[in-house]
Amino acid sequence: MLEQDHTGGQLYFDDLTIGQRFTTGSHALDAAQIIAFARQFDPQPFHLDDAAARQTLFAGLAASGWHTAAISMRLLVESGAPIVGGILGAGGELNWPRPTRPDDVLHVESEIVEMIPSRSRPNRGTVIMRNETMNQRGEVVQVFVARMIVPRRAGSGDAQSNE
Amino acid sequence: MLEQDHTGGQLYFDDLTIGQRFTTGSHALDAAQIIAFARQFDPQPFHLDDAAARQTLFAGLAASGWHTAAISMRLLVESGAPIVGGILGAGGELNWPRPTRPDDVLHVESEIVEMIPSRSRPNRGTVIMRNETMNQRGEVVQVFVARMIVPRRAGSGDAQSNE
Repeated sequence: MLEQDHTGGQLYFDDLTIGQRFTTGSHALDAAQIIAFARQFDPQPFHLDDAAARQTLFAGLAASGWHTAAISMRLLVESGAPIVGGILGAGGELNWPRPTRPDDVLHVESEIVEMIPSRSRPNRGTVIMRNETMNQRGEVVQVFVARMIVPRRAGSGDAQSNE
Repeated sequence: MLEQDHTGGQLYFDDLTIGQRFTTGSHALDAAQIIAFARQFDPQPFHLDDAAARQTLFAGLAASGWHTAAISMRLLVESGAPIVGGILGAGGELNWPRPTRPDDVLHVESEIVEMIPSRSRPNRGTVIMRNETMNQRGEVVQVFVARMIVPRRAGSGDAQSNE
């Protein structure tokens, strides 16, 4: 799928359907980025130094999972589903099935798996989106099943509901 | 609870018990940090500019949830449970019940909620740890129920298991 323009997304809750898919552009990682993020937020040997990382479960330098998550967010914001008002997550289930490595080229493939209109707030709904972050070999390095808050078109909500 | 020394954690799976709690030191946030993180990883108006954020659901500048997560990780690594080999997460359930704001002072309170020895790998186990990130008013801004991989003491695993 082609990259989306991230500026001023136009999709409302009412424009989305279960099974709809979106694919982001890509981001090329390197050891310097991995180490810079780790120094700031996750200063552990396996994220800071390749030689030290070889002595650990990671068997070599690996990005902090939070770095993979942050890069994935950047990709979603810039070239993921162009949702009106932006990408607004309330949380979700996060998995890192394998490490992200220096020289990995990452992209995110998203699929809408559930849509829950709000009863109390007819101007929005919750969209469950499964976001798989993949490397250049198509291996999944992160799965984030996100609960997103998505605006509804004016007048499209249940008229019986009260805000 | 007092801060822990993060260098060379000494707790193995076998030293941990359900209900055990740990409290980290604190981190003072400010608008500059929020904006710097957002520029790099989550460039959306509500994370970049207070005036723009007032027009959104956030009603004022708020940190990216991934920034809250990254700060929480730094706190856990530096002063959370001193686990041998470091803080090694496989994933977990992430929730952001309220925004993190400029001038928030964050800390993390952790509790071990489940412990699962590995059958196939007697040298490690999975520990489920509930990590609540709180602001200076004791309000929870993030809950991360993490699945952590924790080493076992040599010889403490099930002798009948095979690696």
